[in-house]
Amino acid sequence: MISEKNILNTFKHLINKSDVDGIVVVGSGDDAAVLDTKEKNLVHSVDISKIDTHFPKNFPAEDVAYRSIAIALSDLAAMGAFPSFITIGLTSNSKSIKWYEDFTKGIEKSLDDFQIKLVGGDVTYGELSICANVFGFLYNKPLQRSGARIGDKIYLTGKLGEGRQGLKDFNNNINSKYCKKFKKPEPQFIKSKFISSYASSCIDISDGLIKDLSSICSMSDVGAKIFYEDIPIHKDIEDLSHGDDFELCFTASKEHSSKFKKNGYFCIGEILDGDKLTLIRDNNVIELDSDGWDSFK
Amino acid sequence: MISEKNILNTFKHLINKSDVDGIVVVGSGDDAAVLDTKEKNLVHSVDISKIDTHFPKNFPAEDVAYRSIAIALSDLAAMGAFPSFITIGLTSNSKSIKWYEDFTKGIEKSLDDFQIKLVGGDVTYGELSICANVFGFLYNKPLQRSGARIGDKIYLTGKLGEGRQGLKDFNNNINSKYCKKFKKPEPQFIKSKFISSYASSCIDISDGLIKDLSSICSMSDVGAKIFYEDIPIHKDIEDLSHGDDFELCFTASKEHSSKFKKNGYFCIGEILDGDKLTLIRDNNVIELDSDGWDSFK
Repeated sequence: MISEKNILNTFKHLINKSDVDGIVVVGSGDDAAVLDTKEKNLVHSVDISKIDTHFPKNFPAEDVAYRSIAIALSDLAAMGAFPSFITIGLTSNSKSIKWYEDFTKGIEKSLDDFQIKLVGGDVTYGELSICANVFGFLYNKPLQRSGARIGDKIYLTGKLGEGRQGLKDFNNNINSKYCKKFKKPEPQFIKSKFISSYASSCIDISDGLIKDLSSICSMSDVGAKIFYEDIPIHKDIEDLSHGDDFELCFTASKEHSSKFKKNGYFCIGEILDGDKLTLIRDNNVIELDSDGWDSFK
Repeated sequence: MISEKNILNTFKHLINKSDVDGIVVVGSGDDAAVLDTKEKNLVHSVDISKIDTHFPKNFPAEDVAYRSIAIALSDLAAMGAFPSFITIGLTSNSKSIKWYEDFTKGIEKSLDDFQIKLVGGDVTYGELSICANVFGFLYNKPLQRSGARIGDKIYLTGKLGEGRQGLKDFNNNINSKYCKKFKKPEPQFIKSKFISSYASSCIDISDGLIKDLSSICSMSDVGAKIFYEDIPIHKDIEDLSHGDDFELCFTASKEHSSKFKKNGYFCIGEILDGDKLTLIRDNNVIELDSDGWDSFK
């Protein structure tokens, strides 16, 4: 039998581990955290990762923690922001203190990798679920989904489908590089910083390219066409509607094309007038539904 | 069959409903919210409310939302802060759009009652659970749990046990004033503002007086004695170890006694040297365990 106190003790050493930039006025362990945001605008996102929906049932506790935090941080990258601190709402039905210790190791690794601080949280009993609250500051301007303009080019920062392959490999007990990527996804902060001066809109590929690009289109009140042959994919067309890659999809006016090409980003299409998202493949025009794959499978 | 989009649509009208103080630079609906904290320190807390643990199975959706937000906000009051904005991580397995509409009504009522903004959130499928992230700003100084000093008096801002009675009444289908209080608890912001200039430590009664006062003692490295006859209770000694009242327990140096008395606060004991929490009842001295009731039942 373990108590809430036992669980909280496993997290204790993470609290206010390092605070070189002096953001934490009052850290975790009190009723609330007090944070000095240094007169900068704060960027905040909340992301729930649930067992069986966002990660498999037998996913190791360390990876549960790391992955939940990393994919929440990806939303900051998509907004053109760098990370600073997090809080975590953990629901777990594990009665093994080792599980919480391993979970804590995953948090600690993420704190180290992303140079962030854990400033608070809550723990409750129930089916495994992590509510990761992430906080950061803008590199430049906010990269909103609503900023795409007719004539803008559409870019991807990397390949799609490796996350999908990673989940498959995990389920087949294959410890591939894709499996490692699924366990420890990488929020694209460096790329976010680079594009933050030029991009007109941005989103991270968490729900699949089609759904996520549709979101840019509907929020920008535009349409788009994308070219299948120009999209960097791991395996097949299903890679367009699978999430878990956390690369960034962004738009920018044509004048910046050479900069992005030089830096290895992939131009995959163009923003158009209207409200349709179309895929060009072998000279066929396929009209896509915003809910993604289901409509054109 | 309802989709995530249907659910998100029920919340849409709440987004950036009013932003008279200009805090929201980018509101909900994007990858992240961007917030202008006006050069003030930010106070943040996260609180999970789970079905069957924090509210009963048949609790109405509107009350689930309102109560989850209100008790999260209570942590801001306990920290000496007023509320400004919130984000919500909702896990629900309801397939009825009416349920989400009712849940939204509860959020809206809380936004109106507490004059706060909803700036983001996430929705996922699973057993009902609400991760309420609350944000505010200090009235004065942070009221930490660690500030109690030997010789300080211990105060309560109100009666204990009405929340407990309310839950009982709800379960017995009695629509009493206690039941209403359980459904819509009141974070003690006005009292928090008043005491924020004088209190040396503060906590809200969410886990029961004994556990919560023990937390002040252990974090302040002191002991305490409290007098049963001076504690305002609804029914019996069990009211000391039941949470759900969300009154504030705070300490302050003796010089402020008359101010608190005049304002109707209850002086229930004194901070002592050592690490023991004792209850004096009918001249008997009962040593309490920090885990509360179980040790002296």
